[in-house]
Amino acid sequence: MAGVWSMGPGTYEVPLSLFAKNRDRLAEKLKSGQVVVLQGGDDINLYDTDIQYVFRQEAYFTWACGVREPGCYFALDVKTKKSIVFVPRLPDEYEIWMGKLLSCQDYTNMYGVDEVRYVDEICDVLKSLEPDTLLTLVMDNETLFPIIAELRVIKTPEEIEVMRYICKVSSDAHKQESAPSNSEKMSTGFASEEKSPETLATTLDLWKWILPKRLHISKRRFLESAVMLYAKPGLLEYQCESVFLDHCYRVGGCRHVSYTCICGSGDNSAILHYGHAAAPNNKMLKDGDICLFDMGGNYAGYAADITCSFPANGKFTEDQKLIYEAVLAARDAVIRQGKPGVKWTDMHLAANRAMLEHLKRGGLLKGEVEKMIAFGVNGILQPHGLGHLLGLDVHDVGGYLKHCPPRPSGPLGRLRTARILEAGMILTIEPGCYFIPKLLDAAKRTQKLAQFFNWDVMDRFRGFGGVRIEDDVLITDKGVENLTFVPRTVAEIEEFMANGANFK
Amino acid sequence: MAGVWSMGPGTYEVPLSLFAKNRDRLAEKLKSGQVVVLQGGDDINLYDTDIQYVFRQEAYFTWACGVREPGCYFALDVKTKKSIVFVPRLPDEYEIWMGKLLSCQDYTNMYGVDEVRYVDEICDVLKSLEPDTLLTLVMDNETLFPIIAELRVIKTPEEIEVMRYICKVSSDAHKQESAPSNSEKMSTGFASEEKSPETLATTLDLWKWILPKRLHISKRRFLESAVMLYAKPGLLEYQCESVFLDHCYRVGGCRHVSYTCICGSGDNSAILHYGHAAAPNNKMLKDGDICLFDMGGNYAGYAADITCSFPANGKFTEDQKLIYEAVLAARDAVIRQGKPGVKWTDMHLAANRAMLEHLKRGGLLKGEVEKMIAFGVNGILQPHGLGHLLGLDVHDVGGYLKHCPPRPSGPLGRLRTARILEAGMILTIEPGCYFIPKLLDAAKRTQKLAQFFNWDVMDRFRGFGGVRIEDDVLITDKGVENLTFVPRTVAEIEEFMANGANFK
Repeated sequence: MAGVWSMGPGTYEVPLSLFAKNRDRLAEKLKSGQVVVLQGGDDINLYDTDIQYVFRQEAYFTWACGVREPGCYFALDVKTKKSIVFVPRLPDEYEIWMGKLLSCQDYTNMYGVDEVRYVDEICDVLKSLEPDTLLTLVMDNETLFPIIAELRVIKTPEEIEVMRYICKVSSDAHKQESAPSNSEKMSTGFASEEKSPETLATTLDLWKWILPKRLHISKRRFLESAVMLYAKPGLLEYQCESVFLDHCYRVGGCRHVSYTCICGSGDNSAILHYGHAAAPNNKMLKDGDICLFDMGGNYAGYAADITCSFPANGKFTEDQKLIYEAVLAARDAVIRQGKPGVKWTDMHLAANRAMLEHLKRGGLLKGEVEKMIAFGVNGILQPHGLGHLLGLDVHDVGGYLKHCPPRPSGPLGRLRTARILEAGMILTIEPGCYFIPKLLDAAKRTQKLAQFFNWDVMDRFRGFGGVRIEDDVLITDKGVENLTFVPRTVAEIEEFMANGANFK
Repeated sequence: MAGVWSMGPGTYEVPLSLFAKNRDRLAEKLKSGQVVVLQGGDDINLYDTDIQYVFRQEAYFTWACGVREPGCYFALDVKTKKSIVFVPRLPDEYEIWMGKLLSCQDYTNMYGVDEVRYVDEICDVLKSLEPDTLLTLVMDNETLFPIIAELRVIKTPEEIEVMRYICKVSSDAHKQESAPSNSEKMSTGFASEEKSPETLATTLDLWKWILPKRLHISKRRFLESAVMLYAKPGLLEYQCESVFLDHCYRVGGCRHVSYTCICGSGDNSAILHYGHAAAPNNKMLKDGDICLFDMGGNYAGYAADITCSFPANGKFTEDQKLIYEAVLAARDAVIRQGKPGVKWTDMHLAANRAMLEHLKRGGLLKGEVEKMIAFGVNGILQPHGLGHLLGLDVHDVGGYLKHCPPRPSGPLGRLRTARILEAGMILTIEPGCYFIPKLLDAAKRTQKLAQFFNWDVMDRFRGFGGVRIEDDVLITDKGVENLTFVPRTVAEIEEFMANGANFK
């Protein structure tokens, strides 16, 4: 099982043993006589045409076998631990249009499974295994679903390495190109640049170290390789999106991003799912705008999900600094406190608390922070949860499995998980503060909420938009390891963007 | 109806009158009492997740009303010519996640239709129109389909301007950045750079004229703005794809390309639909490879579809030159002979004939060209048709409508249309010559085919790959107007790429 898959030199070589280990873990949880059968994804046509969306594989299927092609099935015989992939029997003419037909042996080698057969043989093959039970995620998902979902929650060391890579590529796309000196590491496994929570403020140190090495590349090229150097007033939001997509693909080998890029500037930064068809990142960045860019690449199916918020012109106003640092305080609180054994709901509240305290000191709020939370002020300013599990789905599975704490009632019910943190989990930490007209209006009308706001100050922030800081983190035995490498403090961002501006 | 839609400064401003004119043309073909009802596209989720593919609107729907959002319907009352768009009634919370809720009046202004109502009102509204017949493309498509499809075949002047734009943007992405001097034109309507077929060989003149103006931008930036300057041995095919995507989006405002990019190099260039999930443009360009890059942007739903073939290292070998010029001869024959009144099947055969004659002169083939065609040698070397209609679908509708020549029997049956050319049609002209092992083996085994090949020469071309030259052209009263602006002769390509190499 020495095989690997990558998108070529300089991109991460995913070991096929990653998937083999997932299968082993799954077999250990099941009983002899059970046979797992999973269906892979199919191509999707654009309406009634012969044009297809670029294929993306289903996440459970990827997890079990890493097969990257449409129309396949997978079986795992628990008794023998034998893994079988079923591929479509393609017509001979396929070769003319789609390329050389691979044999079952070619596929066996390519995917490192025990056997590859044709889809039309699946009934016979399954019968020959003489299973007591067939387990699927469709017909009877009471047995298989909670087991496989739970296994997906806890990442293996092999999976963590892929996550390191996609988070690094995505970080770079936000803020810098991969260092040439990293290429070597990347081809053999991307070594972690370990950082304790205490040294997070010095992420820029890495950048400063890299910067001189890259002065041999042209100024313009350099600027256009990373969103936070490229962004400036006068550009359209989607031009920044395009720079991100290009970096992820060209440098990182990511054909997909994990979700539609959210590139909100000005008041669009308060639209939580901005970037969709009716609001397609097509506003012009204006001087004085805050930018909230939420974008994450995808490699081998594994997702990054990173948000950077920064001023379009590279220099925070006092108001922007106030809001930004309130959100940063929330993020820092979770980075500090996160570790195995703590409840995610407590982390959410810790983040809310830190943010509300900062906003109170800044004059936007008044009264007791605990009361604010009891009355729901936190939900007015941050209507979403602290974050979510991350993996083969960007909103990864396993948030509310039967053996886990159930979905809380009340405002905490909006959290995507209420789990107790465990080593090997990867989550996003993404506190935010948004000035959403609809919610502010509602708060102003409701006395129990209105009492906590200094409305004369608050009204200054109408049209401000919002700030989100989103890191992808690994829970380790010791605490939180941040997989995200972007400038985060106000000083870091301003210095970073000023370095960019020097080239402009 | 003075409204326009664009992706911002520098991108083409599509007049809403384009869609109004389509509706007028449709109403003229129908009878009072008939009401047309069209369903727009819906969002597609990525499997069982909350992640969605970036929305693309259905083509007939776009044609009729230009609505860019999912979940909508459209109605046209033929009697009054009244156009009505139905939009989803979104819940209040939508505003928090997706942005400001637009009123029906906002939508009316945005899309320039007569009225906008909510989807839940569609039954009442349709009843109030008291129609004799409802015409759809789903339930009864015998009436509406042939009429609307035929209208889509003949482009209006407004549609032709959008096609000029998307073909120019896509040409530029293959070979150069839009000239800054064009930006002004583009914002008010992209003026055609008219070229007669005779002057096509001088497309590079335009380039030479632009080149000095751009020397103020950095060398590297310049190289990385266009695929044919960026491409070189050592890069991965998808890195070239990424440059294309980035150019189309960042410069041209194209969020989509019209189809998955085909970026074949070396023997991959003989795989007609290369680039799919099992062959995702991930081979390294090698010295001596021919590249066949088939990529086209999409703007406002309108599609470009352009193929450039060129040597990865910028310099044709004698063999590459021979094959390339055979294909170019085929393309030139069609550019010369195409005009209203000629049959597309005749154009296909004219292209085949020109190519076979050239290959015969080059020593690959022997015997009479007409016999070669009678026996099917053309189908061995070019297993696809000459081209296809182009518009809101890349393989546009209307190829075989009832009033048109039916699909031919025999090898010509593979053509996507057998129509007689008319002014206002836009088609691709895309002859190709491929060395496809499977087809060559079959030809060698079949005496009636084998007799036309000089196999000692042919065998030299095993692994060569293939060449395709694909232009997007408008049929005018006078003949063919090429909407594609890329270097096409061997000399042009070599000079162009050498200019690029000077920067490397």
